[in-house]
Amino acid sequence: MKAKVRLYVEHPLGAGQSVPLTREQAHYLFGVMRLGLGDPVALFNGRDGEWRTTVAESGKRGGVLACVEQSRPLQMPPDLWLLFAPIKKARTDFIVEKAAEMGAARIVPVQTEFTNSDRIRQDRLQAHAIEAAEQCGGTVVPEVTDLQKLDRLLADWPEERQLMFCDEAEAGVLKGLAGATPGPWAILIGPEGGFSPAERTRLHALPQAHVVALGPRILRADTAAVAALTLWQTALGDWR
Amino acid sequence: MKAKVRLYVEHPLGAGQSVPLTREQAHYLFGVMRLGLGDPVALFNGRDGEWRTTVAESGKRGGVLACVEQSRPLQMPPDLWLLFAPIKKARTDFIVEKAAEMGAARIVPVQTEFTNSDRIRQDRLQAHAIEAAEQCGGTVVPEVTDLQKLDRLLADWPEERQLMFCDEAEAGVLKGLAGATPGPWAILIGPEGGFSPAERTRLHALPQAHVVALGPRILRADTAAVAALTLWQTALGDWR
Repeated sequence: MKAKVRLYVEHPLGAGQSVPLTREQAHYLFGVMRLGLGDPVALFNGRDGEWRTTVAESGKRGGVLACVEQSRPLQMPPDLWLLFAPIKKARTDFIVEKAAEMGAARIVPVQTEFTNSDRIRQDRLQAHAIEAAEQCGGTVVPEVTDLQKLDRLLADWPEERQLMFCDEAEAGVLKGLAGATPGPWAILIGPEGGFSPAERTRLHALPQAHVVALGPRILRADTAAVAALTLWQTALGDWR
Repeated sequence: MKAKVRLYVEHPLGAGQSVPLTREQAHYLFGVMRLGLGDPVALFNGRDGEWRTTVAESGKRGGVLACVEQSRPLQMPPDLWLLFAPIKKARTDFIVEKAAEMGAARIVPVQTEFTNSDRIRQDRLQAHAIEAAEQCGGTVVPEVTDLQKLDRLLADWPEERQLMFCDEAEAGVLKGLAGATPGPWAILIGPEGGFSPAERTRLHALPQAHVVALGPRILRADTAAVAALTLWQTALGDWR
């Protein structure tokens, strides 16, 4: 019987492991999804692949799942960060969901000169990333970091990490991804107001930067995120 | 002075043309955006490119914009249809918005065997497409058709139109877009429940069909739409 429910847990998974459930998980499995003893649940924890488990104990406030066998090996996403400037709540949630589905390893909200929001709810965004990973069949949940200032990130940019960014104002100077090599990468999606002149200068001066165009129309940040992730995954990531 | 407002109208645009405003447009321009006589407004109608106009008359129930000069030539999107099975309201709206931004010429909601919804609000979806075109700087609004049955569409499929579709169950038989040629195309995004066996057989039998994979994770329909449009635009469309 195929599991109808797929959950992320922090507990180790392996032969003989019993996984205790939190109150919320027990409510979801037994109250909402109406699972009973012996019913299958798929679990993953970002380290041990996906495991088929069955309900060994169920209660209102908790329960236990028993590991049966590994159903999928661990598949690490490529070493890709998605940096983006937070926008309206629904579209920010959307970008996090999409980044998890598309296989980013790390999601970094950045504050730019023209970013409106100066705070994010990291816990809420991380919960969105978990839900997206549960839904898309991934075996790893990308980490969502706290909001970081773009200028500091760029000032201290890791030497070995390539950076792809989209600059509508500079379509003439495209390096693109032709000739780019796999390895640690980041994609930067700018704010809807664009980068500031200082940010643009700094980005273009970065030796690791690749400027990429996303067509003749102006894309919203959430659209640009999915389009840029598609280009990168196809050229350099696990869609090859 | 650059126009802060960009609107789609049906009226002809050209040297000497005066464009009457509807009550809603007048409310938006003068009530919401607080424009006054002489202020610039960018207009496009899908035929005459984008025109810079200025407010010649303003009132509570109407007004007139006078064409000044063409600010962008007409840029027709490629002859690309996006076919998709409607899903939940917010995600359906999203797919229409994204298809307009990404440069589809025609948006076709299709009813498949596993599609839940048997009706759509065509007028509401068309309004979304207009808003997205206003926002993204396009000079054409894609047409949103009424809901069509997929089996009838496929039975009567135009001979010259290539079809790209994504089939998670058939990743082994990919034709992909390598070797595909530009021309009339369509992208088909299946329902979240997948295609039925009969639909799958029919799709694979279609000589115009190209099966494409979108990576190792399962994408939601809205993510798949943006990813597929990106692949197509990069390989065959106006992102080349």
